[in-house]
Amino acid sequence: MTEDILLIPGPVTISNKVQRALGTASISHTSPEFAAIFARVLKNTRLVFKGGETSQPLILAGSGTLGWDVAASNLVEAGEKVLVLSTGYFSDSFAECLQAYGAHVDKVRASLGDVVPLSEVCEALQGTKYKMVTITHVDTSTGVLSDVKSICEVVKKVSPETLIVVDGVCSVGCEKLEFEAWGIDYALSASQKALGAPPGLSVSLLSERAVKEALTRKAPSCFFASLKKWIPVMRNYDNGKACYFATPPVQLVNALDASLTEILDYGLDARVAKHWTTSDWFKNRITEDLGLELVTNSAEDSAHGLTAIYVNNPAEIIAALKKSGIVIAGGLHADIKNQYIRVGHMGAVACEPSLQHLQSCFEALKAFAGGMQA
Amino acid sequence: MTEDILLIPGPVTISNKVQRALGTASISHTSPEFAAIFARVLKNTRLVFKGGETSQPLILAGSGTLGWDVAASNLVEAGEKVLVLSTGYFSDSFAECLQAYGAHVDKVRASLGDVVPLSEVCEALQGTKYKMVTITHVDTSTGVLSDVKSICEVVKKVSPETLIVVDGVCSVGCEKLEFEAWGIDYALSASQKALGAPPGLSVSLLSERAVKEALTRKAPSCFFASLKKWIPVMRNYDNGKACYFATPPVQLVNALDASLTEILDYGLDARVAKHWTTSDWFKNRITEDLGLELVTNSAEDSAHGLTAIYVNNPAEIIAALKKSGIVIAGGLHADIKNQYIRVGHMGAVACEPSLQHLQSCFEALKAFAGGMQA
Repeated sequence: MTEDILLIPGPVTISNKVQRALGTASISHTSPEFAAIFARVLKNTRLVFKGGETSQPLILAGSGTLGWDVAASNLVEAGEKVLVLSTGYFSDSFAECLQAYGAHVDKVRASLGDVVPLSEVCEALQGTKYKMVTITHVDTSTGVLSDVKSICEVVKKVSPETLIVVDGVCSVGCEKLEFEAWGIDYALSASQKALGAPPGLSVSLLSERAVKEALTRKAPSCFFASLKKWIPVMRNYDNGKACYFATPPVQLVNALDASLTEILDYGLDARVAKHWTTSDWFKNRITEDLGLELVTNSAEDSAHGLTAIYVNNPAEIIAALKKSGIVIAGGLHADIKNQYIRVGHMGAVACEPSLQHLQSCFEALKAFAGGMQA
Repeated sequence: MTEDILLIPGPVTISNKVQRALGTASISHTSPEFAAIFARVLKNTRLVFKGGETSQPLILAGSGTLGWDVAASNLVEAGEKVLVLSTGYFSDSFAECLQAYGAHVDKVRASLGDVVPLSEVCEALQGTKYKMVTITHVDTSTGVLSDVKSICEVVKKVSPETLIVVDGVCSVGCEKLEFEAWGIDYALSASQKALGAPPGLSVSLLSERAVKEALTRKAPSCFFASLKKWIPVMRNYDNGKACYFATPPVQLVNALDASLTEILDYGLDARVAKHWTTSDWFKNRITEDLGLELVTNSAEDSAHGLTAIYVNNPAEIIAALKKSGIVIAGGLHADIKNQYIRVGHMGAVACEPSLQHLQSCFEALKAFAGGMQA
């Protein structure tokens, strides 16, 4: 393929080790060799989400989006109420997915670039009994970082029966997330962001309460995303035994094994901290050195895996950087789609000192600084 | 991973070219480079299924199973009637998927090792108006090959409004299939069988009539498998333009590009013929030289991508072959689960003369011939 520097908010640049683990021969999905790899991936998924021993990891062929279907079709019945805390495009798409399966969705919507105020979460939960609340940890469309810990505290206090679902697609591996300690019921992510693997896997974790909910409810309104089908399969692989429902993508699982091992060898907390340092450095360069404005309204509410920057000529900048071999992303939020750019800095790009990709990106942006202010 | 010879009915041994195309860096899913790759994959998918110009290919992150969800949630409404022609485990699982989305399923069931008699298909269609009929081209659990062409003729004659859905997971690339000429509405397959790529992609084709059905029906009861979401995305990529709904697995698509190119360079008809020759050779060795019985009752109704063989000690044989580095599969059909073995011979193993894997398997089986008769 190409030798461009990849700085979009996923797929991210994969490490050499991960790339080698990907480019391997196919092996049998029911072989003891694959069962051992899958068992390790499940255990390491639990560690990377900081889940407890009773939490159930789930690795499926699919994209991050599939995790929404898992939640919408297994943890809510048609007609049940879900509270969606919306911080952008991805929160709204999750809401649309819930509605497709028949959930009744209420939204609390943040202002552009802001998080949903805790008082509004509290008020909504006091007024209505919700089966589920969804939090988009990082909305990749704006780079807004929600305070999952504080929201969980509010839910536990006001409505402890409500299931807490966290979209961690752009957060697991680069933001603080404590599945067990914060009492999360389902956290979903994808392989191609801060988990540092290629795209193609839905990677998620269920609490004991969510597993019970999925196994005891009436037949789910889906098949490929059915937890009644997948939980026994995952439990078997977790114990090192092969089990079949649908063929797992063996090479992608092998690549995820390599990337999770890299993350845990580095140290999960150290890895998250390194993403924060990298993000702070880049955001400071953008605001202080280039005098540009971020889409997020405060440093505290800004994600550490990407930076969304207002510019007056996004298409021109993206094209110019592409010419010099640097690939960044355009806007995605409908209200400001053509007014900003997004730079991703997750995984190897943030953590491998040998990769000076973000520095190169900053230098390239600097060259255009004169005409960039939106 | 391991250096075992892989002879299960999927995942299959991938060629060196395909493996190299898999082990590449991540690139942006919206880059012109990826759009060009995806456009070629879509066009070549149409060719490999023998679809017409108006047919719509669909490449999704997922397994073959996801194609069932696509059919069940986009082409039938809850309560509508579907006729399932059942030749084994996979036909029955497809029926279960249809029911999960609310379809009313009637089954015509073949005897073990046989196809459904055409007269019974005709009778069922004359008695009831069905929205859809499903045909499992090859049921991987038994190796039974259905006569899709003749069934299509019956449907067109008796009930032309009925949508024809073909599960071609274990057939596309190794059996005769003519999507356009036979009037199929939806044919679904997977990357890891005769298409010769790694597992992780649902690969399928929709007729113009099926596209219309999917786009005009009420909102589908799914999200990740929603054709209303995916058709515009595929149409854009088909025209070389990137479009986003959920992140495609860029390396898997690149690997599929390599394998589809290999198939078309070889010549699709020649490639299918080569699978037939290989299969005939192996089946003759098994029945004539070893005196063993196949699960399929006639040569005419036997698949060419795998061979299912009755033996009296499957677990022992599988373990012995594994010891000598050859991986084959056990039974899957509930009625005879522990009475047979399955040997896959799709893709490179059937078509690359340098690979003598199937010969090695035959020699290994021959060594156990004395105790194998079931």
